[in-house]
Amino acid sequence: MLDHSGPTDNHLHAWDRDHFFHPSTHMAQHARGETPNRIVTGGEGVYIVDRDGRRSLDAFGGLYCVNVGYGRKSIADAIADQAHKLAYYHAYAGHGSEPSIELAKMVIDRAPKGMSRVFFGLSGSDANETNIKLIWYVNNVLGRPEKKKIISRWRGYHGSGLMTGSLTGLAGFHNLFDLPLGPILHTEAPYYFRRADRSLTEEQFADFCAARLEEMILAEGPDTIAAFVGEPLLGTGGIVPPPAGYWPKIQAVLKKYDILLVVDEVITGFGRLGTMFGSDFYGLEPDLITIAKGLTSAYAPLSGVIVSEKLWKILVEGSDKFGPIGHGWTYSSHPLCAAAGVANLQLIDELDLLANVREVGPYLRGALAEALADHPLVGEVRGEGMLAAVELVKDKADRVFFDPPNKVSVRVASAMLERGVIARAMPQGDIIGFAPPLCLTREEADIVVDATRQAIEAVAASL
Amino acid sequence: MLDHSGPTDNHLHAWDRDHFFHPSTHMAQHARGETPNRIVTGGEGVYIVDRDGRRSLDAFGGLYCVNVGYGRKSIADAIADQAHKLAYYHAYAGHGSEPSIELAKMVIDRAPKGMSRVFFGLSGSDANETNIKLIWYVNNVLGRPEKKKIISRWRGYHGSGLMTGSLTGLAGFHNLFDLPLGPILHTEAPYYFRRADRSLTEEQFADFCAARLEEMILAEGPDTIAAFVGEPLLGTGGIVPPPAGYWPKIQAVLKKYDILLVVDEVITGFGRLGTMFGSDFYGLEPDLITIAKGLTSAYAPLSGVIVSEKLWKILVEGSDKFGPIGHGWTYSSHPLCAAAGVANLQLIDELDLLANVREVGPYLRGALAEALADHPLVGEVRGEGMLAAVELVKDKADRVFFDPPNKVSVRVASAMLERGVIARAMPQGDIIGFAPPLCLTREEADIVVDATRQAIEAVAASL
Repeated sequence: MLDHSGPTDNHLHAWDRDHFFHPSTHMAQHARGETPNRIVTGGEGVYIVDRDGRRSLDAFGGLYCVNVGYGRKSIADAIADQAHKLAYYHAYAGHGSEPSIELAKMVIDRAPKGMSRVFFGLSGSDANETNIKLIWYVNNVLGRPEKKKIISRWRGYHGSGLMTGSLTGLAGFHNLFDLPLGPILHTEAPYYFRRADRSLTEEQFADFCAARLEEMILAEGPDTIAAFVGEPLLGTGGIVPPPAGYWPKIQAVLKKYDILLVVDEVITGFGRLGTMFGSDFYGLEPDLITIAKGLTSAYAPLSGVIVSEKLWKILVEGSDKFGPIGHGWTYSSHPLCAAAGVANLQLIDELDLLANVREVGPYLRGALAEALADHPLVGEVRGEGMLAAVELVKDKADRVFFDPPNKVSVRVASAMLERGVIARAMPQGDIIGFAPPLCLTREEADIVVDATRQAIEAVAASL
Repeated sequence: MLDHSGPTDNHLHAWDRDHFFHPSTHMAQHARGETPNRIVTGGEGVYIVDRDGRRSLDAFGGLYCVNVGYGRKSIADAIADQAHKLAYYHAYAGHGSEPSIELAKMVIDRAPKGMSRVFFGLSGSDANETNIKLIWYVNNVLGRPEKKKIISRWRGYHGSGLMTGSLTGLAGFHNLFDLPLGPILHTEAPYYFRRADRSLTEEQFADFCAARLEEMILAEGPDTIAAFVGEPLLGTGGIVPPPAGYWPKIQAVLKKYDILLVVDEVITGFGRLGTMFGSDFYGLEPDLITIAKGLTSAYAPLSGVIVSEKLWKILVEGSDKFGPIGHGWTYSSHPLCAAAGVANLQLIDELDLLANVREVGPYLRGALAEALADHPLVGEVRGEGMLAAVELVKDKADRVFFDPPNKVSVRVASAMLERGVIARAMPQGDIIGFAPPLCLTREEADIVVDATRQAIEAVAASL
């Protein structure tokens, strides 16, 4: 390793500008050094520390993924032990490792009822790729070759790949990449605050969403629609819980037309809503569940697809007819990552983080609402579990949004960072998102709320 | 963790059958316990050990990925240190970690000339997704919205996802999944042994491949073809070095029609051919390089796309026009994985593994040829660097292949495993593949050759 003798050593900064192609970054400004870079070196609890010694309260938990918080020794120890014992062997053709099998069992023990098997990948994106492949495979086995289209929702987020970015319903992930591709359709976002017809109640808006879905199914032909993919509540699309009554109505439509339900629990899985899964929280009955982030709290990259017993039976029938499945990643169920997952799920239980979510999550949202709901720039404070969002508006009474070039939410997030708190300016709309580690305390919640209030006031004063 | 008190503890075997959905496995037979499972617990050098104490010489290096061999303490220590220091922070919006920046620099230092930046992902599949997105983005920035089709080759392997599985040119990865999708075309496999016209010399067959490529480009329209994707030598398609003269002829065609060259170095990157990259070995001038396996020797999941300076300039122009790029994975450049990469590349240098490849690779192929070339079932012994393949035929003089249901290569691989050596029955054709760790010794090569010879003789006797 290099000699990292301190902040005066600037090799890394130069190499960062010259050689490191960052995700979701302005390449030109970064390369020219016009935007700040930040080299993170450590963390503990809800705090991260960078190479210059700056400490920030990470109220977004990395990218909603560091569920147990930073610096957990038991997970680091489990990773270290596995790295020294057996860092890698593949899982093809019936091979496995102790932690990967153990983790499969632990995931099924925690999953909603009716779930049977876990296929491990690395990212939420690849898990959603696996979902699409399994859906198409299943309908081929069932002799329904036309039933292949997949409906997701505007403002859903399901990945950044070609097909998974197509499932995603956000313009910033489509534009310039020729997405969405092929057989992916998008239906209404269940986003009550942004509903077109403001006269609707939540229940009426949920009816409207279900009716729009059914219209699309009928227009396309029910025999062409294989599956519906949705997050329990919209995540990157704005941290938006569904309107009251939404999911029972949607599930009824799906059942009526024999359409599979894929629940993307990348954000909600493993405690984010105070239940082990978002499916439990909203009473969903998924055929497939996408998991990632909370599975390892990001200590190592690991994702998965949880397959229902109903679908598993069709997969078994398929392999009896056609042989081994032609799907796999070299690093499926990587032992190192599985060991991180085992230790992480144990820690979630030991620390009783679900109970903390049920206590501190509502406290955080309550405090945000108390501090901000009356502010003229704040259109809505919302959330569920340990997720919250503050949506900013130009004109509150008429619900007029800011023009995107004003970058109001980006300015608020920057002003928060100056005050030592990381929140996320969500990519579409002026929405400040909060997804802190599940171990957040009331005192830390107060710090987050204070910084948010101060930042909004500072930006408001500059408008 | 559970009490793993020894081989009599069968919880894991039951859980494996009941809950673990393995990649590339016969789901039904595995679930019913009809096929063996194997729980791998440790490894050292070229050997792995399982829970029952069985030791095998892994002549396939996992899935051609454990380049430095198993049980390397320096990499495990680097992972352990990073896990305790900072397991995770994201790399979005200019963030980074020390090992990820250091690794970007190390990769560019080792890359073919003209390469500029590294975008990190997790798997070869996601890196090829990134490649396609970058290719489409670049041609949108350049105002060539029609130039989007991508040509790969039959028998190429570029991943198991939807678009990456489409790039792959193997039936087992297409069938039942409705692949290949959309704008992916496949041209002739540069597979001399299986050429249709057996009268052609290697040079003539290379001319034929280049002519077929040019025909396809002209038939589709050069203004619609964005890129050509290929491995330096075919990997999963059969471990097949190209015919003499192939790459210069192909590169000339690509240059003529302004078509980008993506070199998939997932297998060949970081020493497999005795050079740091396969591009060096064959004199390729890539616009994009896909890397994975050898980058970390599989100690942690990490992949990457190396971007040429020429393409980077267009990306910079794009972000100046359109803002931050809408592409990223939560775990892009995961610090734990980057730390594994840094230690791995250091170890490749320290052990001078490239020199060992140049010495023991030819020795292995020479010994295989000496032992097997005259065998009536052996059609060809081939390879390059630390890669070898033995292709089995039913009738040598007339080059008649076995019918797939006979599973001859699967039976040979099983017979080798009984003799303590792991090789891979390649998925299409009866081909025994070898891709041992780069540290293989001559003595270990002899063990591999003996087991191969004995296994082929045993299977031959049973036919």
